[in-house]
Amino acid sequence: MIDRNDEQFLTETLTFWPHLNPVEQLQLVENTFAARFSRGDVIHRGDEDCAGILIIKSGGLRTYMLSEDGREITLYRLSPGDVCVLSSSCVLSNITFDVHIDADLDSEILMIHSEVYAALSAQNIYVENFSYKEAVSRFSDVMWAMQQILFMSFDKRLANFLIDEIARTGSNDIPMTHDQIAKYIGSAREVVSRMLKYFASEGYVALSRGGVKVIDKIRLRALVHK
Amino acid sequence: MIDRNDEQFLTETLTFWPHLNPVEQLQLVENTFAARFSRGDVIHRGDEDCAGILIIKSGGLRTYMLSEDGREITLYRLSPGDVCVLSSSCVLSNITFDVHIDADLDSEILMIHSEVYAALSAQNIYVENFSYKEAVSRFSDVMWAMQQILFMSFDKRLANFLIDEIARTGSNDIPMTHDQIAKYIGSAREVVSRMLKYFASEGYVALSRGGVKVIDKIRLRALVHK
Repeated sequence: MIDRNDEQFLTETLTFWPHLNPVEQLQLVENTFAARFSRGDVIHRGDEDCAGILIIKSGGLRTYMLSEDGREITLYRLSPGDVCVLSSSCVLSNITFDVHIDADLDSEILMIHSEVYAALSAQNIYVENFSYKEAVSRFSDVMWAMQQILFMSFDKRLANFLIDEIARTGSNDIPMTHDQIAKYIGSAREVVSRMLKYFASEGYVALSRGGVKVIDKIRLRALVHK
Repeated sequence: MIDRNDEQFLTETLTFWPHLNPVEQLQLVENTFAARFSRGDVIHRGDEDCAGILIIKSGGLRTYMLSEDGREITLYRLSPGDVCVLSSSCVLSNITFDVHIDADLDSEILMIHSEVYAALSAQNIYVENFSYKEAVSRFSDVMWAMQQILFMSFDKRLANFLIDEIARTGSNDIPMTHDQIAKYIGSAREVVSRMLKYFASEGYVALSRGGVKVIDKIRLRALVHK
């Protein structure tokens, strides 16, 4: 059960809300729970559970694939207002793959119970359609990531990541380790370190124990569009 | 306009058919066209057009991504009875990527006019939901391909491709060039040639001008599951 603020947020985010009858609306509210996660927490782990539908209130989540030998490939990130249906591949029958989801930042999440949502989805075409539509938006995100990983040369990819990151946070300081950056862009730590060293020697960035600082945004951006 | 056989095939394949009113049904039939393509024909080329919805009657299509420098990555194949909605990213507003589609075999296709389909999709939730559902099935296919490309060692991937191919065609002869195989599994011709030579030296396959013949299916399969 959630409070009135959360209920309002829920009804605004789930665009199928007006198509639910009062019984369905009550069922949904009664089976939604508020949860908090700290940066780095694992929220969903592949096929081991069915986390339910996640609605991000604050913070941010990272969705990734995990190989048998532990390599991670970041697929996309979710921001406040985003709805995550892929944590519930048990809800959408034709999703046959599993993803992992971590909290990227300290996050507040509303979670809808997966069985209740699955039942609503089976009886109300608007709910089903909302889920598929959300999944297809993520499909576009994944295709973008795949293009980056498979087609873009590594210097462009890293420059692109740094530019995106400072645009997202509004700060030139990127407080991430080389290992973390490698995970985000689907590469190895050694490769990231080598290229960052090159970027530093060219004066694009400065490296410190705490992370990376972008110094020459204009030339870094030129690298992305070269 | 299509003949009665095609009309029956259309109504059986489009599972939303019973949810259309008679006017909508007529509109759909009147704006569907039968087309033939020869093996190798380009059917859809990225963002250059909006091919409409494709329904495969016979033959098969291959969907792929194309990099700026001409590299291809095969995403999935479509077989008789499959419906392709990604050729119409103009129909689904939240699909923001483009794919390329070639005829993999000589193929007969029914094509639904994209604007008519888009209008139906906007006015009938069952049509919209069908499109998203089909797109999500392809999402699963793409995730599978991505896992193969990013995570599987190359010998496994090639063995896997050969095993799938003989299962699909029912013949141990695979009449494809090394270059064609490379395109299917998202690799380079040189890499495929080198590994096939190794497979031949191990007695898994025999190589000829016309293609590859699988000789030791059991050991090839063992390679996939090693």
